[in-house]
Amino acid sequence: MTEARIEADKDLPIIRITRDFAATAEQLFRAHTDPELFAQWCGPDSTTVRVDRWVAENGGAWQYAAVRGDEEYRFRGCFHEVRPDRIVQTFTFEGAPDGVALETLTFEDLGDGRTRLHAQSLVDSFEGRDAWLQSGMETGVNEGYAKLDTLLAKGTI
Amino acid sequence: MTEARIEADKDLPIIRITRDFAATAEQLFRAHTDPELFAQWCGPDSTTVRVDRWVAENGGAWQYAAVRGDEEYRFRGCFHEVRPDRIVQTFTFEGAPDGVALETLTFEDLGDGRTRLHAQSLVDSFEGRDAWLQSGMETGVNEGYAKLDTLLAKGTI
Repeated sequence: MTEARIEADKDLPIIRITRDFAATAEQLFRAHTDPELFAQWCGPDSTTVRVDRWVAENGGAWQYAAVRGDEEYRFRGCFHEVRPDRIVQTFTFEGAPDGVALETLTFEDLGDGRTRLHAQSLVDSFEGRDAWLQSGMETGVNEGYAKLDTLLAKGTI
Repeated sequence: MTEARIEADKDLPIIRITRDFAATAEQLFRAHTDPELFAQWCGPDSTTVRVDRWVAENGGAWQYAAVRGDEEYRFRGCFHEVRPDRIVQTFTFEGAPDGVALETLTFEDLGDGRTRLHAQSLVDSFEGRDAWLQSGMETGVNEGYAKLDTLLAKGTI
């Protein structure tokens, strides 16, 4: 799949994103934990990422701004767990500071140098979950992963 | 109420605990963020708490062991947000290391020096939620809060 599959769980306040990459699990892990790499692919084409805090380890924390001209959209969270096959972190958009998602990323080896990324976002209401789905998030997700494809193809990661 | 009310949400994989205290919100905040105070009340009477890591701030982390004789039950997580009226943190029992709860504590001022603690635990499945409910957690919750009552009555907090 070249587009990410973005699905709402039927029974749980969860969004699941699935996306295949021509990469090893280890490359996807680095793409999500090295701040210089992360800043090069995360988010829509119309923004650039400035990382303000980044300690990718159990009990660490992260913070970045997506910058478009004079506008900044800030996001932050803590890393609950960082291990080669799984990253668990919290996620808040500072424009809605009381909203918190618990995100779980896993890297599934498909063989032949391909890996499936599973990203699960859990929130505490269906309304909050559906607001995310209707926010236009798929643009940032798909454009971001396309940039990650390009970095992988160039051998940057 | 002198016993905590422990409820499962009907539609969401959430446990909610509600408990009133003869304390201000500020005292309850300190009881949950000062590691020396926390160690004096958390958990059942049969264990003592050893705090191994504790940075109670946005993006901080915590880790403690509940010790009973030669046995240790270890718990850990990160602090997503620490503010006077709200603490958001992750929670894992290391005996089940892939299980993660997102906990939100809020302190509701009831007036007359009384405060209602609301503790919400969100997990990603109803099975996981129900396993917690059936684990005997209410003993630790109620015995812990009774110790907290005692600390408040003695003026320790």
